[in-house]
Amino acid sequence: MGKKAVIVLSGGLDSTTCMGLAQAEGYELYPLTFDYGQRHDREVEQAKAIAHHYEVKEHRIVDIGFLNQIGGSALTEDSISVPTEEEEGIPTTYVPARNLIFLSLAAAYAEVIEAEAVYTGVSAVDYSGYPDCRPQFISHLEETICRATKAGEEGRPIRLVTPLIHLSKGETIREGLRLHVPYHLTTSCYQGGEVACGVCDSCRLRRKGFADAEAIDPIPYVDGVKAGG
Amino acid sequence: MGKKAVIVLSGGLDSTTCMGLAQAEGYELYPLTFDYGQRHDREVEQAKAIAHHYEVKEHRIVDIGFLNQIGGSALTEDSISVPTEEEEGIPTTYVPARNLIFLSLAAAYAEVIEAEAVYTGVSAVDYSGYPDCRPQFISHLEETICRATKAGEEGRPIRLVTPLIHLSKGETIREGLRLHVPYHLTTSCYQGGEVACGVCDSCRLRRKGFADAEAIDPIPYVDGVKAGG
Repeated sequence: MGKKAVIVLSGGLDSTTCMGLAQAEGYELYPLTFDYGQRHDREVEQAKAIAHHYEVKEHRIVDIGFLNQIGGSALTEDSISVPTEEEEGIPTTYVPARNLIFLSLAAAYAEVIEAEAVYTGVSAVDYSGYPDCRPQFISHLEETICRATKAGEEGRPIRLVTPLIHLSKGETIREGLRLHVPYHLTTSCYQGGEVACGVCDSCRLRRKGFADAEAIDPIPYVDGVKAGG
Repeated sequence: MGKKAVIVLSGGLDSTTCMGLAQAEGYELYPLTFDYGQRHDREVEQAKAIAHHYEVKEHRIVDIGFLNQIGGSALTEDSISVPTEEEEGIPTTYVPARNLIFLSLAAAYAEVIEAEAVYTGVSAVDYSGYPDCRPQFISHLEETICRATKAGEEGRPIRLVTPLIHLSKGETIREGLRLHVPYHLTTSCYQGGEVACGVCDSCRLRRKGFADAEAIDPIPYVDGVKAGG
């Protein structure tokens, strides 16, 4: 039996790049996708297509619509509008402790399937002001997980692998293209339409990334302009 | 506006004692109950009765049935039977990283309502072999939460309060009785019936606790014997 890695797969650029990187490290891929009733339902469909592309044995999709019951974010509460302008500080799309919650669940799943690593595509460079995308947070959480699990207890601590943490979006894309990551299957737009809006925070970051990588973004945009190239 | 505390309220002895302790500290109580499709559905009903007893402003009940999608425990998987005998090491009722997941969600809720503390009734004394009930785990998680949240970012870290961590079940009950904690509304049995089975790990621990506290357990048991006294 090969060594296993859980990949937190959102259907976006970064998590899909993690699929390519974990595969290159020789891991059997166990993508885990969170379906949390957020605006971009498209992400789940794209995540399925990406999992299929990588011919994974199992793709767990976990319904975490209950995050709406906790509230506090533009991505989960319909009453707060999605921002289209650059914001100062921590954005309104902030879901409290989102990575803490997602990575805790990923660690639980890793323990169940006896995976030795959890890959997450967080980046401290283009982290958009989220506190839980930083190296200090990740290393603290890794230690906390070690103390929370039977695996850690028994001397097989689950590693949190963050290969993109020091990469800009452009560097991530360059790395992904080298590994033939299927970027045409990824989605980034906060609006979640069939065609990317091109103006939300996430679209702007993606387009800048492709421009920096001097590559063509294979997905369509509302304005018809191809990013990068 | 008074200071707020989130209380992780399962409907059991320990979490209900935390309601009494947080109230005695002058906190407005915001109980948070996880309904995770486990065998003891009764817990949620009892938690509601306890919240009503304390006349709380709000009682959030969060559906986390998705834990079944992650799996790995006798409490969430019907295929694994509930143990009735004393077990060695980590019990089969273990849900991977359960406290990590629950306390992460509680921290997110605390951030939303601007609570300064999260109370949890974990005990390192009668902790039944769960790795995530120990002081080292709690202190690591508290630091991790500080780094994961806007509150921590802005110098208002959310405290994880574990008043029972060094108390035995008997000591907890003695403390609770002093504070008039409504133990008649609590439920502990893993079988989750109307009347406690008296033989599961949790019932045995509870009965021993009341015996040690030299108090009468107000709930009924199948065998009709009153614990303690």
